[in-house]
Amino acid sequence: MPATPLPSAREASAALARVGRHFHQRGWVFGTSGNFSVVRSRQPVRLAITASAAHKGELTARDILEIDAKGRVTRGRRPPSAETGVHLAIVAARRAGAVLHTHSIWSTILSERHRGRGGLAVRDLEMLKGLDGVTTHAHREWIPIVANTQDMPALARDITAVLAARPAAHAVLIAGHGLYTWGRTLAEAERHVEILEFLLELEGRRQSWPS
Amino acid sequence: MPATPLPSAREASAALARVGRHFHQRGWVFGTSGNFSVVRSRQPVRLAITASAAHKGELTARDILEIDAKGRVTRGRRPPSAETGVHLAIVAARRAGAVLHTHSIWSTILSERHRGRGGLAVRDLEMLKGLDGVTTHAHREWIPIVANTQDMPALARDITAVLAARPAAHAVLIAGHGLYTWGRTLAEAERHVEILEFLLELEGRRQSWPS
Amino acid sequence: MPATPLPSAREASAALARVGRHFHQRGWVFGTSGNFSVVRSRQPVRLAITASAAHKGELTARDILEIDAKGRVTRGRRPPSAETGVHLAIVAARRAGAVLHTHSIWSTILSERHRGRGGLAVRDLEMLKGLDGVTTHAHREWIPIVANTQDMPALARDITAVLAARPAAHAVLIAGHGLYTWGRTLAEAERHVEILEFLLELEGRRQSWPS
Amino acid sequence: MPATPLPSAREASAALARVGRHFHQRGWVFGTSGNFSVVRSRQPVRLAITASAAHKGELTARDILEIDAKGRVTRGRRPPSAETGVHLAIVAARRAGAVLHTHSIWSTILSERHRGRGGLAVRDLEMLKGLDGVTTHAHREWIPIVANTQDMPALARDITAVLAARPAAHAVLIAGHGLYTWGRTLAEAERHVEILEFLLELEGRRQSWPS
Repeated sequence: MPATPLPSAREASAALARVGRHFHQRGWVFGTSGNFSVVRSRQPVRLAITASAAHKGELTARDILEIDAKGRVTRGRRPPSAETGVHLAIVAARRAGAVLHTHSIWSTILSERHRGRGGLAVRDLEMLKGLDGVTTHAHREWIPIVANTQDMPALARDITAVLAARPAAHAVLIAGHGLYTWGRTLAEAERHVEILEFLLELEGRRQSWPS
Repeated sequence: MPATPLPSAREASAALARVGRHFHQRGWVFGTSGNFSVVRSRQPVRLAITASAAHKGELTARDILEIDAKGRVTRGRRPPSAETGVHLAIVAARRAGAVLHTHSIWSTILSERHRGRGGLAVRDLEMLKGLDGVTTHAHREWIPIVANTQDMPALARDITAVLAARPAAHAVLIAGHGLYTWGRTLAEAERHVEILEFLLELEGRRQSWPS
Repeated sequence: MPATPLPSAREASAALARVGRHFHQRGWVFGTSGNFSVVRSRQPVRLAITASAAHKGELTARDILEIDAKGRVTRGRRPPSAETGVHLAIVAARRAGAVLHTHSIWSTILSERHRGRGGLAVRDLEMLKGLDGVTTHAHREWIPIVANTQDMPALARDITAVLAARPAAHAVLIAGHGLYTWGRTLAEAERHVEILEFLLELEGRRQSWPS
Repeated sequence: MPATPLPSAREASAALARVGRHFHQRGWVFGTSGNFSVVRSRQPVRLAITASAAHKGELTARDILEIDAKGRVTRGRRPPSAETGVHLAIVAARRAGAVLHTHSIWSTILSERHRGRGGLAVRDLEMLKGLDGVTTHAHREWIPIVANTQDMPALARDITAVLAARPAAHAVLIAGHGLYTWGRTLAEAERHVEILEFLLELEGRRQSWPS
């Protein structure tokens, strides 16, 4: 994987605000839900990440913090998202450059309906080709589902475990909660959100088609 | 609950106009439906409130009135919303700083389908955590439903009664009519609308899933 | 009914363009479908009306013609909408100040499903109160449906007949085609479109709910 | 068919960027899916076409290439869309001035459900009249469906064959993939996309109505 230039603090804030406006307009981050991060430095690890309870459609530089590998705030004065540990776990497991978490209606419904099976398969659709490394529609994407919990260290551990067990997965659903996906760059992570939300809505409409 | 700074008349008008543009774009206040208020003063009680029959997507300062605790207009020249009494009842019962009323398709459908049960429960979803005071997805939110009527004092009394009976409720549905929710601030009330509209659409899609 | 000031040609063009942008954004006038008119003069009758085949989301002054009571173009160089006669029939029958015709997915589906019954009833919903003259949700609105035809004089006659037979109706559906509604002013006609599209989507979702 | 003036490179870029913003907003080109072309010259053949993997909502002049009749890049430094051959095949078969390819949820679902029948009929709807050459709602539009493949020359040949077999068709679906349509001008092709997406959503909602 070639090195990707990392954004400055100012670039990261502007880019996360743009993503937030886009996703809020789609209804994917209602009610201050969702959180976004982008890697600013690899050594030492520094992430620009949305503050807790920020309105994702109206992010300003003050809503973007910088954290280190332990989740401690190194820049900014607001508490970070409670799910900071999940972002750090994904960055570590996938060497991601950006992590995006959304709460959409279709992803929530499917995460509940498929939780008992531990995940959801989507296959044989051209849209899958937009996922990093997928080169044909003849692909089966397994989207693992982990249980929801308010024990954030446990959630980060569960996601780390599922990422290790499913090295080809591009995303994880948390049951009754939402979607995590990532990319080498923020643009790739945003592309993955669009693709996965498309596939989950398609899958939901398909599964709810009366037989 | 800490004191929250109250908005000036100019701030209230601008903020309500912004909320109106947002909600109209979502299709939640079509046909001049819906009404919005924000508390401008506690002693004496003064609310900035939308005038009757105003287009909610194009509110200007002339569409925002000021009323007192009896619903009399203290600023502005247009008739206030007919549902002024409901706003005052909610402000009194919940010490709310803002009250928002929307008419969406999903809330209307569910308010009709569940009216016989007196309400609708939503539970175990992460999105519930965005409601004021809720700290876990393991929460059951009961949204009471009251009958619709054109007798506005009766409607205000019915809503006062249901708020007293359900002190933990964050919202009330009026059957075949729409949603009322509130918050300490207008931002919190707007967040509650987004969360409740999300949950009601999710619930509607879930309940209409063919078995 | 009090006299309403009539718009200048410039005002009419700007207002119709604004309505077109709004309705195109909603997906109600895709593919150059739909047409809009506003009365510019009563004696003699002059209507500002959209030209045939204009993109409704990008209307400019050149896309707005002026026609007389016979449908002849008195201002502008493009052919008028083929449905000019329907606009004139509605203006005559209802003394409307504006007529709006939209093609939405829900109105098309319901117009097909209910054509055999000659119309569709919507009742007991608060949103009905936004229709001109309706003062309570306890109202039954009958939306007549006429058959579609490419014989435009016949279509105008059929709509004239149904308006005479249903003097309380606020709108007419053409089967497999779309919605006509009107108002004393363009603002009222636009409000009626929002209300009727809301009610038709609600009715469609209600009727397609699995039993 | 009268000659239509062909756009300059600058006009083509601006027009394709505008189409991309519109379609991205509708959710029809998520995840860098879709591709667009417009004929810049007939002799020799030159097409302005979107580069591979460009974000369709944020196209700039650098994302628009120029190709010749063999699909070789004659202007620009990025790889062209992999589906360049399909664009050239449609331009040759239909003497189109513009070709648009979208990936929507409804077109994907219906292309899968109807693939076994080789196509999908839509009939008797007024919206059909917006298709080039159709003059009445009493029309039956057959939308052929071809199998998906990553063998791009084979896909171009399959589409050429289906266009020859169905000379009246205004569009082709690729199963599990999306829609191709075209027009004499880019405006006509965009109009066809709106009409076909409308008809496919309508058809999907109609077919999934519980019986």
